Amino acid sequence: MFESETTGVPGSHPMAGDAVFDLHVGGKMQIRSTVALAGADELSLAYTPGVARVCEAIAADPEMTQHYTWVPNTVAVVTDGTAVLGLGDIGPAAAMPVMEGKAVLFKQFGGVDAIPICLDTTDTDEIVETVVRLAPSFGGINLEDISAPRCFEIEDQLKERLSIPVFHDDQHGTAVVALAALKNALVLTERRPEETRVVISGAGAAGVAIAKILIGAGITDIAVIDRKGVVSSDRSDLTPVKKELAELTADRAGRSGSLADAMDGADVYLGVSGGTVPEEVVATMADDAIIFAMANPNPEVHPEVAHKYARVVATGRSDFPNQINNVLAFPGIFRGAFDVRATAITEGMKLAAADALADLVGSELSEDKVIPDPFDPRVGPAVSAAVAEAARRDGVARI
Amino acid sequence: MFESETTGVPGSHPMAGDAVFDLHVGGKMQIRSTVALAGADELSLAYTPGVARVCEAIAADPEMTQHYTWVPNTVAVVTDGTAVLGLGDIGPAAAMPVMEGKAVLFKQFGGVDAIPICLDTTDTDEIVETVVRLAPSFGGINLEDISAPRCFEIEDQLKERLSIPVFHDDQHGTAVVALAALKNALVLTERRPEETRVVISGAGAAGVAIAKILIGAGITDIAVIDRKGVVSSDRSDLTPVKKELAELTADRAGRSGSLADAMDGADVYLGVSGGTVPEEVVATMADDAIIFAMANPNPEVHPEVAHKYARVVATGRSDFPNQINNVLAFPGIFRGAFDVRATAITEGMKLAAADALADLVGSELSEDKVIPDPFDPRVGPAVSAAVAEAARRDGVARI
Repeated sequence: MFESETTGVPGSHPMAGDAVFDLHVGGKMQIRSTVALAGADELSLAYTPGVARVCEAIAADPEMTQHYTWVPNTVAVVTDGTAVLGLGDIGPAAAMPVMEGKAVLFKQFGGVDAIPICLDTTDTDEIVETVVRLAPSFGGINLEDISAPRCFEIEDQLKERLSIPVFHDDQHGTAVVALAALKNALVLTERRPEETRVVISGAGAAGVAIAKILIGAGITDIAVIDRKGVVSSDRSDLTPVKKELAELTADRAGRSGSLADAMDGADVYLGVSGGTVPEEVVATMADDAIIFAMANPNPEVHPEVAHKYARVVATGRSDFPNQINNVLAFPGIFRGAFDVRATAITEGMKLAAADALADLVGSELSEDKVIPDPFDPRVGPAVSAAVAEAARRDGVARI
Repeated sequence: MFESETTGVPGSHPMAGDAVFDLHVGGKMQIRSTVALAGADELSLAYTPGVARVCEAIAADPEMTQHYTWVPNTVAVVTDGTAVLGLGDIGPAAAMPVMEGKAVLFKQFGGVDAIPICLDTTDTDEIVETVVRLAPSFGGINLEDISAPRCFEIEDQLKERLSIPVFHDDQHGTAVVALAALKNALVLTERRPEETRVVISGAGAAGVAIAKILIGAGITDIAVIDRKGVVSSDRSDLTPVKKELAELTADRAGRSGSLADAMDGADVYLGVSGGTVPEEVVATMADDAIIFAMANPNPEVHPEVAHKYARVVATGRSDFPNQINNVLAFPGIFRGAFDVRATAITEGMKLAAADALADLVGSELSEDKVIPDPFDPRVGPAVSAAVAEAARRDGVARI
């Protein structure tokens, strides 16, 4: 009888008349019952006394959870509000609109039921313990907008302690989509991965994950840049995470120095840092360069500038061609993982997602189309099928 | 594109053909988006870049959460799985079907969005800390099926640390509905509260809460019974919770001894314990006795036996008249609390809910109708209105 109720009334809220706020009145999501309780008989099936038999069945065989609860289709979208969009550490309450948005995207593009969980702690151990305690309620954990380097340790610990998919979307979602677009850009510019020189600007969550997935895809010459220049072992100021990153990237290729040093002759620039790259530095890149300037809302290289020097340009924005948008990846990745009751999301599943995305472009491949449109209806099914298959191949599928 | 997807397929599950299990396939609830994302323009309002402005508004003024997120209409249904129905300590995973059922009832009868949170810990402090960390995501906390005496301390600590409604339904939902029915039964049998002798069988969550609400309603002669007899201070085996209970109840009325001692001449028997009261003990009650035998599925006194000695008989079952069903209370209580952004659920709000429920019976009052039917559409609105008004009176309403 209250089914359509919301807590806000459009037209009577503080920012009435503003399209963004009008749309947000009452939030962006609700619970929907999938059982109708029209009378006592139905109540006795869905609730007491009938429900007791379902509880007993699960107590006797935990696998029954997969059949008779919403858990296997449900993901917790967990944040501490420390790295929200470009806004930074705005806290858990202010992070909620983003988490609700994520949940809406999970549902629309993956059929996944996602619950926003905004935590009132930024302590690594407390976040881990809290999520471990919540885990029986969820089929997977999507970490979101948690600042580096805590996000790495939180994800590592949760992956070790839980046997359900754990995925930090700011890292891996971005990495999967960037790799998909880069694969197509390399085809267009006739480059092979092992002879491609890549600069990644940003050594945070996304930068580290992109570096790792590119290595997994066969790219060997990578320089990751932070505020002090190339992350390389000749520096004395590296954190443990950056030390490991240096060894995986710049050290192998013998790169060091400044952003300008790294960009001179580079084939690919991948920006996930914010800030601006001076045009004279962009001008030193190789012919037929590839520039993905993914910072939102202000790309590190404005597309107009980028196009002067690069053949393929992508951004994080929807108002330019080639939008690198995580929504291309995370809904299908969880859909695929859930479809086979995967116990984890492996590197192979991420690479398979990137391949599936890249392949969808097909004969439409051009400088202005290296990645599918987020609203292309083939995306979710293609990614989920590829991810499910990879989960089986990697031995983490349970059905 | 995945909107109708569920993880199970009816007809292909382990218990196919069993009505209870057929109904539970895929669970009983889903997430529903309240915004349609048909293209990039809408995506840019509900998600990046538009959503950033909503985040900033909340960061500047936390009260904006009340307008632009689902939080103020959302309750966490939190359990540790230690006292589920009559099944006892079956653990968090097996508790989920009950919590989903609760969520379905919250939605149908209160328009409240409820999220089941089944915790993988039974430690009091860990449960408290976990819920405190989760609190920014929810407008209220409904504790459920947590065993006594931990449930008392968990609720007390959470009420102290949080400024949102915290409500242990096994205690207070049961108490509100029992009081409502008892008020009408006292009218029918022409008793005044202050001259009514009550026996409560069961000193767990429900028994303690019923004792306290009856005191709030003006009943002074109460004996609470546990396995060893009347909970009174002449016993040497009382826990701190039971010691406090004794002082509030039997000590004041000078009651002690066995169940049989307490029942001899008692006006009211309220059973929330399970077990069976021997017929010869029931026979010693006062004329026009009132028996609420609420244990499920087996009432402490079978209605056929009870009717031999009592004028008003109620149970927890839907197949007898006068069902004492929590669903009459908790959806409307949270609806009313949410409607006025209450910071707590006070004793006054619980008493108001009981009064509203009792009043709804009106001219239909009879021995077989001391409480409304759970499907009476007036229940939710009447309870929520009374609770909202009481919240204002008690100074905990914020609008």
